Amino acid sequence: MKQSQLFSHTLKEIPRDEVSFNAQLLLKGGFIYKEMAGVYDYLPLGLIVLDNINNIIRSEMNAIGGQEMFLTVLQNPEVWKKSKRWEDKSVDIWFKTKLKNNNELGMGFTHEEPLTVLMKNYIHSYKDLPKFPYQIQTKFRNEIRARSGIMRCREFLMKDLYSFCANQEEHEKFYEIIKKAYYNIFKRCGLGDITYLTFASGGVFSKYSHEFQTLTAFGEDIIYVDKKKKIAVNKEVYNDEVLKNLGLDKNDLIEERAVEVGNIFTLGTKFSQALDLKYTDEKGKSQDVFMGSYGIGPGRVMGTIVETSHDEKGIIWPDAVAPYKVHLLDLRRNQDDRFYSILQKNKIRVIYDDREINAGVKFNDADLMGMPYRLVLSDKLKNKVELKRRDSKDISLYSEKEVVEILKGNYK
Amino acid sequence: MKQSQLFSHTLKEIPRDEVSFNAQLLLKGGFIYKEMAGVYDYLPLGLIVLDNINNIIRSEMNAIGGQEMFLTVLQNPEVWKKSKRWEDKSVDIWFKTKLKNNNELGMGFTHEEPLTVLMKNYIHSYKDLPKFPYQIQTKFRNEIRARSGIMRCREFLMKDLYSFCANQEEHEKFYEIIKKAYYNIFKRCGLGDITYLTFASGGVFSKYSHEFQTLTAFGEDIIYVDKKKKIAVNKEVYNDEVLKNLGLDKNDLIEERAVEVGNIFTLGTKFSQALDLKYTDEKGKSQDVFMGSYGIGPGRVMGTIVETSHDEKGIIWPDAVAPYKVHLLDLRRNQDDRFYSILQKNKIRVIYDDREINAGVKFNDADLMGMPYRLVLSDKLKNKVELKRRDSKDISLYSEKEVVEILKGNYK
Repeated sequence: MKQSQLFSHTLKEIPRDEVSFNAQLLLKGGFIYKEMAGVYDYLPLGLIVLDNINNIIRSEMNAIGGQEMFLTVLQNPEVWKKSKRWEDKSVDIWFKTKLKNNNELGMGFTHEEPLTVLMKNYIHSYKDLPKFPYQIQTKFRNEIRARSGIMRCREFLMKDLYSFCANQEEHEKFYEIIKKAYYNIFKRCGLGDITYLTFASGGVFSKYSHEFQTLTAFGEDIIYVDKKKKIAVNKEVYNDEVLKNLGLDKNDLIEERAVEVGNIFTLGTKFSQALDLKYTDEKGKSQDVFMGSYGIGPGRVMGTIVETSHDEKGIIWPDAVAPYKVHLLDLRRNQDDRFYSILQKNKIRVIYDDREINAGVKFNDADLMGMPYRLVLSDKLKNKVELKRRDSKDISLYSEKEVVEILKGNYK
Repeated sequence: MKQSQLFSHTLKEIPRDEVSFNAQLLLKGGFIYKEMAGVYDYLPLGLIVLDNINNIIRSEMNAIGGQEMFLTVLQNPEVWKKSKRWEDKSVDIWFKTKLKNNNELGMGFTHEEPLTVLMKNYIHSYKDLPKFPYQIQTKFRNEIRARSGIMRCREFLMKDLYSFCANQEEHEKFYEIIKKAYYNIFKRCGLGDITYLTFASGGVFSKYSHEFQTLTAFGEDIIYVDKKKKIAVNKEVYNDEVLKNLGLDKNDLIEERAVEVGNIFTLGTKFSQALDLKYTDEKGKSQDVFMGSYGIGPGRVMGTIVETSHDEKGIIWPDAVAPYKVHLLDLRRNQDDRFYSILQKNKIRVIYDDREINAGVKFNDADLMGMPYRLVLSDKLKNKVELKRRDSKDISLYSEKEVVEILKGNYK
């Protein structure tokens, strides 16, 4: 991408009410645009980051048997009344709207109910189980306050997978499998070292649910972390009995602020009973399907990456989610596309700052926008290229050939 | 994909109120699921078709300088009041909702207004023009009747590109370019031969807008087609003056039913004036930005393909949009994955019917689901594979090697 062609660009002025680093940096860097509190558009570079995260999530979900589908925003109240989640007194974050005939509709904040009804068409026998449909789809939640940038939105993308198993045993097997897939996702997104499996309150069918919490000063949650054992306990269930239960010692735990980047939850037969999703087992007996739900907010992951990976100059994107791997700054009096074309031919994802503006602006924008590698072409450097990683202070000079080999990971 | 693993499957019973072929066949084939009138979920196979169409659209939009972004559903009324499109008396298809503080929000039925406001951050000088942002995003329209399956939905995906040009001349240049891109899209989706550029009513800034209308008995529109000249006139502007204007002869025109699969529209300065989007020209003078909008509904394209490409047995997907190129039916007593793996290794998109059910069901499902090629493995055929195109009656026997070469397009 030539930067001169990009319709979005960095901004100096952003809305004054933004208090979070993620929103400040993403707005300034030209990744997102604010429509209103908790409602953000994704500009071209932001959309690439979001798609990169989505594709990491997709590949991990597909690898464990997930099947992608796409459910609707508009929700039929009749379905939600059966599970007692329609009334505002039981769920206080609904956005609701109306058809022309004045019938109320909901805007989905999650999808257990409609999916359970849908699956009644496809689950009849034990042979139809287990199944793991998922989607990456927009959810709506009528939050009273939405002041955390893209971390807590009124409208946001969510990956939600639902498991449909024959019984608790089959469920627990899958639960361990998706736990590992979640670890993989956060690791691939560059959050592996600071993300902890965290015990949180469960439901009727399991003592705990599990959250994936990433340490950050901006987090809304308090967790107690055992860094050796790589697990944590959410403040909501932090007490002596739970610690004993989990074999944790108070003295090994550190209180930390963290943000929930994912959660996995045993639903049991709560929804299958309410909405009558049954199957016939091997002995011909009718049984309730045993369910679980597993969420990740790709936008929240993106915000968390920015919260935990930036400096005073701007964002530091990890390679796997960066919109481009390389930011090529051309400071020469006579700019040309030659080296940019070479990088493209070598399939290196590159944004080329070909704008006719002064070098200081180019350097500042590159730091703010945060691509993992910065390359500089300058008349002073003769035929060498200056290479700097965004997360390092070291600057080195290489030949064009060497730079290509480094970026392709072939350089020794 | 192994068909035994797929959570969705073909259905015999579908909602009785479905009158359209597209909804009937897509519901029976396991591509979509109906939440309510005009509101459909996409099941795994349906989502692949939709993604294939989206990716064709994306590649054509990117090729002409389109830049993908993603705007929000939730809409701030203040923006729409300025263009006089907030009140229900001016726009009668709004879905509206409310924040906790009772402030009303809209659910976007299109995005001229918010995007025009957004672009005020990025367009200042003539050097910032032209720009062509687009998105593939969910729209909401409160239709009184929604009885055309996925052709006219209350919630539906839309590709909307908006052009921002310095003046009418620059706009008209792009208008011709995107016209060609639209032809390419419909051609690649298999609708090229029956889709006509159709003159429809314009606005203040141009005499006509242009629709792309696909001939189908189920279409909501009446158009008059000149098949030689490959253009048509919408009934809404069909009169002697217009025909004279366009150099068309009444005797060359045939009245046809058609469905609008895309439209391109000159907006002029209507929205830039209302929302104050200006730029400074070469002479330092402030000018209104000249706009256009260009829509395609990927779901409607999918429905139109089904309407125009099916027989009494089911759907006939064109190769480019089919969920899989090949449907491999295994009728052998002892099924095994060997040939399925060979096809996969050759990167042929294949769905493998490995279910332990009778051959008749497999044949019927294959016809209903409509993959372009059907392959049969059977003990009767010894080491040969039976190949049949979905759109042909010819059945031939080939060796496994020959089949692979045919599917890879190498067979002479």
